[in-house]
Amino acid sequence: MGITIGDPCGIGPEVIAKAWADEKLHQTCNPVLIGSVEVMGDAVRIAGLHAQVRAVPRASQVTHSHTIDVIEPVEFDMAWVRYGQDVERAGWASGAWLDHADRLARQGALAASVMGPISSGSMKMAGTLGSIATNRDAGAYLLLHSGPLTIAHLSDHVPLASVSSLITTEAVLTLLRSLDDWMKQAGLQSRRIAVAGFNPHAEGREEREQIDPAIAIARSEGLDVAGPISPDSVFRHCIEGRYDVVVAMYHDQGHIAMKTWGFSGNSVAMIGPPYIHMTVAHGVAHEIAGLGKADHTMILNAILNAATLASGQGFYD
Amino acid sequence: MGITIGDPCGIGPEVIAKAWADEKLHQTCNPVLIGSVEVMGDAVRIAGLHAQVRAVPRASQVTHSHTIDVIEPVEFDMAWVRYGQDVERAGWASGAWLDHADRLARQGALAASVMGPISSGSMKMAGTLGSIATNRDAGAYLLLHSGPLTIAHLSDHVPLASVSSLITTEAVLTLLRSLDDWMKQAGLQSRRIAVAGFNPHAEGREEREQIDPAIAIARSEGLDVAGPISPDSVFRHCIEGRYDVVVAMYHDQGHIAMKTWGFSGNSVAMIGPPYIHMTVAHGVAHEIAGLGKADHTMILNAILNAATLASGQGFYD
Repeated sequence: MGITIGDPCGIGPEVIAKAWADEKLHQTCNPVLIGSVEVMGDAVRIAGLHAQVRAVPRASQVTHSHTIDVIEPVEFDMAWVRYGQDVERAGWASGAWLDHADRLARQGALAASVMGPISSGSMKMAGTLGSIATNRDAGAYLLLHSGPLTIAHLSDHVPLASVSSLITTEAVLTLLRSLDDWMKQAGLQSRRIAVAGFNPHAEGREEREQIDPAIAIARSEGLDVAGPISPDSVFRHCIEGRYDVVVAMYHDQGHIAMKTWGFSGNSVAMIGPPYIHMTVAHGVAHEIAGLGKADHTMILNAILNAATLASGQGFYD
Repeated sequence: MGITIGDPCGIGPEVIAKAWADEKLHQTCNPVLIGSVEVMGDAVRIAGLHAQVRAVPRASQVTHSHTIDVIEPVEFDMAWVRYGQDVERAGWASGAWLDHADRLARQGALAASVMGPISSGSMKMAGTLGSIATNRDAGAYLLLHSGPLTIAHLSDHVPLASVSSLITTEAVLTLLRSLDDWMKQAGLQSRRIAVAGFNPHAEGREEREQIDPAIAIARSEGLDVAGPISPDSVFRHCIEGRYDVVVAMYHDQGHIAMKTWGFSGNSVAMIGPPYIHMTVAHGVAHEIAGLGKADHTMILNAILNAATLASGQGFYD
């Protein structure tokens, strides 16, 4: 299990150190970090822990131990860290760590990868934001998961007035097939998919002309798909156990449901890369970076879920 | 307090009979129904209660008693009732009852009005759906309320691809002024308004060109307005007590938040009529109409909230 430590000036290294100290982590997977030994050493101090940190040359040499193992694909100097600030060298390093984790996962050296929180500010300064291979793949979809509520998104950060034109039969059908495949590989036996409509009460042109035909084709291929269902009801239906996953037509449709319902436990998966890739829904939290106050619940959940999904055992929670 | 009994073939009369049996109702207001004595008699039987039902000629003759008082503005024959079905005469009657309640409230004969659930199917058959004076006023806004979460909607059942053109500085400003006035008259001392953005993370053209200027003008007039705030965070902020109300840009933005968060306790107010007008978020529930199984929590909350809002004491809950 590869874990990139995220932006070194944010809370990523700290929450990862805290997650490493949780026994559940080691019962569930054999973790290795991709980042900086020096940064993780400082994170251990900030978190008030007593763990050892050491560099390992390659993933295959990681031993199952409580010493924090770090692969260092690039040089990074602790003197560059400014907690709570966007720093160009931090953005450059977080991009390089991500790219390295992606290479290792595609080679099969990692079973899965989890991304610590990155700073879009730092990465813009470094020019690395556009290069994150795993997140920017054409055909990658964002999946939010928290307990009974799992949501896949057809589109991400797109102006809402432009979303209608992205809702095509082909786009919806491609997501339905990718989602069902992903769930099957992750070991989810029950794959009842509910498709949210786009308009109030799921009554409009996009439903009739684009979403209805996509659902009909997916059903003819044997997928268990219902909808389109009224967007204001479908997420509650999923929470109540009537479906295993909801397909949301746009970013806020899914994100409003997830974040209003409850936030602290959720994790994020990307459907698209040829391996399990997860991250957290929170950011670098500059306002508390370096203070030892950060909560590691989300990153721990992301790691545990990545481990069980990658071994075909479904979600951990 | 005037209460229209809603569609006689749905669960409206039953839940209203059950609410009437709750002591909190009589401690909070002096209720009178607008509907049919025969229908309410059958609702009392269905609900398994033992209350008396009687006709009263006018609102001023209502006595504060546990006998169910009903004003009958039109003839309605119990023989026309088919529980669980859309019936033209039921749609015609529910429209007439609503129009009568609206007249009485505008005359000042009622302090407020609460609408039992109507059937759009029945009302379409009767041609009365377009004539509901209170709900179709130009400049009427839907307000959802449940505990700490209150949401006012700039637009209602509009195709989502058309919403962008409705977000103008003037429209947002008019809603902000109406909402603040309404809350002030209802006795809400704290009126911290949060405006949701339209696009992901509240970053887009509509925010810059239309919403920002409206908020600036409202603030210069002394209103306590924040935003635009990321749509996927603002409702959670309200639940946590940072704001008293959220302005949503479209139907599903607010409805997804409210219905995913929790559903059983909420009530609905219309901002626009010159009196407090409330209703419930559920429908006629044809599948359980006439069976005695319907839950009266929502209509009771709507009546209690209407009573305290109309007397300037804020929300009941």
